[in-house]
Amino acid sequence: MKPIGRVYLVGAGPGAADLLTVRAARLLASADVVLHDALVGDDVLALAPRAQKIAVGKRCGAQSTSQRFINKRLVDAAMRAKVVVRLKGGDPMLFGRAHEELAALAAAGIDCEVVPGVTAALAAAADAKMSLTRRGVARSVAFVTPRIGEGERRNEWARAAAAADTAVIYMGAGDAIGVTRALSHAGLPLSTPVSFVESASRPDAVVQRGILAALPGLAAARGNGPALIVVGQVCAGAVASQPAAAARVAAG
Amino acid sequence: MKPIGRVYLVGAGPGAADLLTVRAARLLASADVVLHDALVGDDVLALAPRAQKIAVGKRCGAQSTSQRFINKRLVDAAMRAKVVVRLKGGDPMLFGRAHEELAALAAAGIDCEVVPGVTAALAAAADAKMSLTRRGVARSVAFVTPRIGEGERRNEWARAAAAADTAVIYMGAGDAIGVTRALSHAGLPLSTPVSFVESASRPDAVVQRGILAALPGLAAARGNGPALIVVGQVCAGAVASQPAAAARVAAG
Repeated sequence: MKPIGRVYLVGAGPGAADLLTVRAARLLASADVVLHDALVGDDVLALAPRAQKIAVGKRCGAQSTSQRFINKRLVDAAMRAKVVVRLKGGDPMLFGRAHEELAALAAAGIDCEVVPGVTAALAAAADAKMSLTRRGVARSVAFVTPRIGEGERRNEWARAAAAADTAVIYMGAGDAIGVTRALSHAGLPLSTPVSFVESASRPDAVVQRGILAALPGLAAARGNGPALIVVGQVCAGAVASQPAAAARVAAG
Repeated sequence: MKPIGRVYLVGAGPGAADLLTVRAARLLASADVVLHDALVGDDVLALAPRAQKIAVGKRCGAQSTSQRFINKRLVDAAMRAKVVVRLKGGDPMLFGRAHEELAALAAAGIDCEVVPGVTAALAAAADAKMSLTRRGVARSVAFVTPRIGEGERRNEWARAAAAADTAVIYMGAGDAIGVTRALSHAGLPLSTPVSFVESASRPDAVVQRGILAALPGLAAARGNGPALIVVGQVCAGAVASQPAAAARVAAG
């Protein structure tokens, strides 16, 4: 059987439906099938009125078995539909398991295109009105995750985070004590400024500020939204005189 | 004099006009004044038909004197116009000097909102069909720049780059020999895979691949477009069987 479709790996952005790119919104409008992560909201899916929607993947990362299942569903969709959108929270190429899906599509001879998106860290920075780089303060930013996939052993994320002027930690809020310990062990002083941003870009976004030693407390005060941890001196001097439109800014 | 306007710091994305966010496109459509960087293209500016357009900033970063001048023009614009868009290539919070503009606006009592954008690294990854993270290979990505601003002395960007599994180097293509030397000195083997991506997301995008030792040669073959350097094992195993729609993929 020959594939009739083309697959688009599309970044859905950080949450707010109007933070999709124009290209992503147009693709969704013409999509026949949309395979989406659990984090993609209903208002984003509403941009694809014609499409069959298939929820795949677990929140906070799928197991490898279900990754194989996602790959199979992607290939199956391209066998029967013309415009197949694989919609991933944030950007597909950053903590999105895109490599495995791209490889599966290539192996099946299916044409594919990647549409980049706004990654959550940049939405968090916007909500907090906190530039991740700053002249004389931060010229390097590391995006890391402490989450270990099946078969992974290396645990050097904390070293990468500590070596950068600013670090943004994805999928680490659920183990804030472990994150604090690992960063401290990697050499970051417990007095290092941190920000804890929950539900970035969403109406219920919350920005909490504090120091690394207080991170477990900030995380304990979180709600149910996806959260990011930002670490570094840029967190100390954010321009806070005017709270973000949608964000409640709390001192940690 | 009281300000009548609100300033939006808006990410213009990597280049292609349809990689702006929907929110950015809507803001441009209603903008009275747009202050934009040199890298923002005419097709993006065409999204703001009503607006007075003011080109500010030099390509590859303004000096501090002109940054003060930009700050003043931003404040002036908000004194006389309602919707003022400060349009920055990529994302405002990553190598965008946003902190200085946010501080100037806050000091002048001007209301401000940040609209995140797609940063060039993610467009480069999309063009190269190369995920920046990969299970078992890369769980940390550093975004760095070797460019030193006025009054800056620290040169630890290479250490941050070497500590991460993947590094993306902004504004480094003009000194590829210096970048290669600094990364090697920071501990990266000269055999480390690299990608050199020029004009990401644009019709004339070019992806070159090679190893760190060959980076000066890849950079010497570049054209006039903005370029990014990606370093790390993810560059070795990109899914290359199907070239990106818009990108010519060359083996370095």
